[in-house]
Amino acid sequence: MSEPQSIAEVTEIASAYYSQIGFQSRIGYGKRPALINIDLANAWTQPGNPFTCHGMDVVIPAVQTLLRLAREKNLPVVFTATAYSTDWDSGVWAMKIPSLKILKVGSPLCDIDERVKPSPNEFVIHKKAASAFNGTNLASVLQGRGIDTVIITGVTACCCVRATAEDAVSLGFRPIVVRETVSDRVPGVVQWNLFDIDAKFGDVEPLEKVVAYLSNLTPLSF
Amino acid sequence: MSEPQSIAEVTEIASAYYSQIGFQSRIGYGKRPALINIDLANAWTQPGNPFTCHGMDVVIPAVQTLLRLAREKNLPVVFTATAYSTDWDSGVWAMKIPSLKILKVGSPLCDIDERVKPSPNEFVIHKKAASAFNGTNLASVLQGRGIDTVIITGVTACCCVRATAEDAVSLGFRPIVVRETVSDRVPGVVQWNLFDIDAKFGDVEPLEKVVAYLSNLTPLSF
Amino acid sequence: MSEPQSIAEVTEIASAYYSQIGFQSRIGYGKRPALINIDLANAWTQPGNPFTCHGMDVVIPAVQTLLRLAREKNLPVVFTATAYSTDWDSGVWAMKIPSLKILKVGSPLCDIDERVKPSPNEFVIHKKAASAFNGTNLASVLQGRGIDTVIITGVTACCCVRATAEDAVSLGFRPIVVRETVSDRVPGVVQWNLFDIDAKFGDVEPLEKVVAYLSNLTPLSF
Amino acid sequence: MSEPQSIAEVTEIASAYYSQIGFQSRIGYGKRPALINIDLANAWTQPGNPFTCHGMDVVIPAVQTLLRLAREKNLPVVFTATAYSTDWDSGVWAMKIPSLKILKVGSPLCDIDERVKPSPNEFVIHKKAASAFNGTNLASVLQGRGIDTVIITGVTACCCVRATAEDAVSLGFRPIVVRETVSDRVPGVVQWNLFDIDAKFGDVEPLEKVVAYLSNLTPLSF
Repeated sequence: MSEPQSIAEVTEIASAYYSQIGFQSRIGYGKRPALINIDLANAWTQPGNPFTCHGMDVVIPAVQTLLRLAREKNLPVVFTATAYSTDWDSGVWAMKIPSLKILKVGSPLCDIDERVKPSPNEFVIHKKAASAFNGTNLASVLQGRGIDTVIITGVTACCCVRATAEDAVSLGFRPIVVRETVSDRVPGVVQWNLFDIDAKFGDVEPLEKVVAYLSNLTPLSF
Repeated sequence: MSEPQSIAEVTEIASAYYSQIGFQSRIGYGKRPALINIDLANAWTQPGNPFTCHGMDVVIPAVQTLLRLAREKNLPVVFTATAYSTDWDSGVWAMKIPSLKILKVGSPLCDIDERVKPSPNEFVIHKKAASAFNGTNLASVLQGRGIDTVIITGVTACCCVRATAEDAVSLGFRPIVVRETVSDRVPGVVQWNLFDIDAKFGDVEPLEKVVAYLSNLTPLSF
Repeated sequence: MSEPQSIAEVTEIASAYYSQIGFQSRIGYGKRPALINIDLANAWTQPGNPFTCHGMDVVIPAVQTLLRLAREKNLPVVFTATAYSTDWDSGVWAMKIPSLKILKVGSPLCDIDERVKPSPNEFVIHKKAASAFNGTNLASVLQGRGIDTVIITGVTACCCVRATAEDAVSLGFRPIVVRETVSDRVPGVVQWNLFDIDAKFGDVEPLEKVVAYLSNLTPLSF
Repeated sequence: MSEPQSIAEVTEIASAYYSQIGFQSRIGYGKRPALINIDLANAWTQPGNPFTCHGMDVVIPAVQTLLRLAREKNLPVVFTATAYSTDWDSGVWAMKIPSLKILKVGSPLCDIDERVKPSPNEFVIHKKAASAFNGTNLASVLQGRGIDTVIITGVTACCCVRATAEDAVSLGFRPIVVRETVSDRVPGVVQWNLFDIDAKFGDVEPLEKVVAYLSNLTPLSF
């Protein structure tokens, strides 16, 4: 491997190469999407916490737009928060990220941000791992409702959003990650993770295109 | 988020910040490791394929060193190759990476490279997803043998190695990724993915330290 | 609990009680079924093995009927065989069932019986656990093809068929177990396991009704 | 298959045959057990509910004995309750068992019975499927703590206890089901399910032997 380069250079070289070798194709939108909002709970969306992410002035309005459309079209709407019920169910992961220990079920830190508040009968998952699918019944619930596409928003790019997109495609769903709704804690990290996701796991799409897709969708029936 | 920066700048800023907020801690080595070699099959290790990775002159000797030690110490040794048995079990993932279709069980492309050839009774998994754990019985096999640590080598940094490390920590194993044994197809991609892994999922360690750990290990008994 | 009773008495009492309390309802047939044939490999279908099951004179023709219809209607067709590639990947289960050790990938024992031979591009899974879903990518493959219903045949009632039905419903699929196609090694065991499956996990249906359902189905497209 | 017979006859014939063919062996006790109490919540342990089970006069004192020992020996103690947070996360399973809809997170029905009340920092899982492992992080938590054996108590024999034992062995744990602590809703059903579990998935052991094992165990450290 050669010298370190700028993120932009790397992604340009990689894109050119991937298109030659049959990577970074489009998965496309399916017919029955669900909206999966990753870790838009106060620990991540509000200032002053170890988990605080940047850019909520862009993320929150974009997610509000998607929520409005998802409810209009009767999509299953899922929210996750990483949240633990004992000192030990954060497992081995807390050895890597000791701050996980503050994420307790019942703490306001783990409540979904009021600005994107779940409606009654929307599904809030207290997940334990990065991926919304790992150690949860999310895949089962989506399979049972005939969902083929997961529209993913939230934080963080390098951790829970990416791991959710990776698992989604591995489990047979089409992952659509909405670019403007994804954030992280450090500039650059969003950029390279969205690049890798789009190259290998799901389609990273601008809000505008996801809005157009949802606007044209026949409302789901169950 | 601010302007794109160099990978080195981003990782420097991120490391400083992570150490403040309780991320990027050390998971450390456990007492009962297994060696998991990701996709060191000909499609990835030999030139001329869409999956070909760089740097095998460094990767292969490093993995040979680890294999010798792992066998001396009676570690479970696992090899994976992404390989499919029909035109359709690559699933939704092949919509993103159409080249997956050439990875057929039985093709020499999916045979483990002769230079790191499995011994009889070592375990070869034909996995279908990026992660060696997803859709396989790997976690079960390791749990049944009392393994607490997975030493991960192979390719690619941004895909199968990273997804395996993410799943390992989510499933209760300590992931140790051996820096010199990991490669990819584009410069820079290895760098940022090893950075993210080390920040959030597992310990990225130099070969020298992994060799020292294994050399001092009491051979495993079952 | 009172005295042991006959199986027929127990199932009669239980059925009456379950109907009172809201159990043993009908799941019903979905719109996109797959056919999953459990362990119809020689170790189970041919005489003289520890795994040999009774009643293949009824099971095999019934499965042949279903295969013909499934192929006519373009259903995904899956075959499983419990089969291991090393001495140790049978894991803890081989401590309970030491005979598992004879089930080796590549042995004729683990080949699907010629009378119900897979067509090219049908999917053969070498599973490691009782359930066809456990440690395999079956759920992912079915989810990726939009399958909502799994028609289950094969052996044995108390082990792999039941565990597959349990996992199917837990993972969001409608399990339909075809009564005439299910067998085991001891009289009575089939009876009580089909009873429990029908009470709690899936619909146990006569061949005639499954044939009628498939005959009326619009062929699947993908 | 021949005529229906009594459960006792069937199990006698089956036991004799299984011992000939290498089934129904002993898995035995490991070194690091956890105690897993299945669905000992009010819906199952108190009279007057669709889920009410028999025999709590025997089950509860037996579980109390095990809890006392488990706490003395510093075992991880887990309690499950099947409990849903929305009208739709019971999924396809509620089509088979419509009564599942009354099992709501937060309802007293889903609270663990006061007589076997969890201590602070013991782990309560609101599971969605029959198995305590399906759609939960239980395997991950146990793997992370080095657990090799799961001592299983609770209800019901034919559903959540059996499915948990099946998954446990499939995931690499030794299942020990404590005979006196397991119940169901109909006589006979316990008998045949404990028989099948002991034949194929785990060791069904009398309380006395489990008590002896735990009494002699060195307390776990973590």
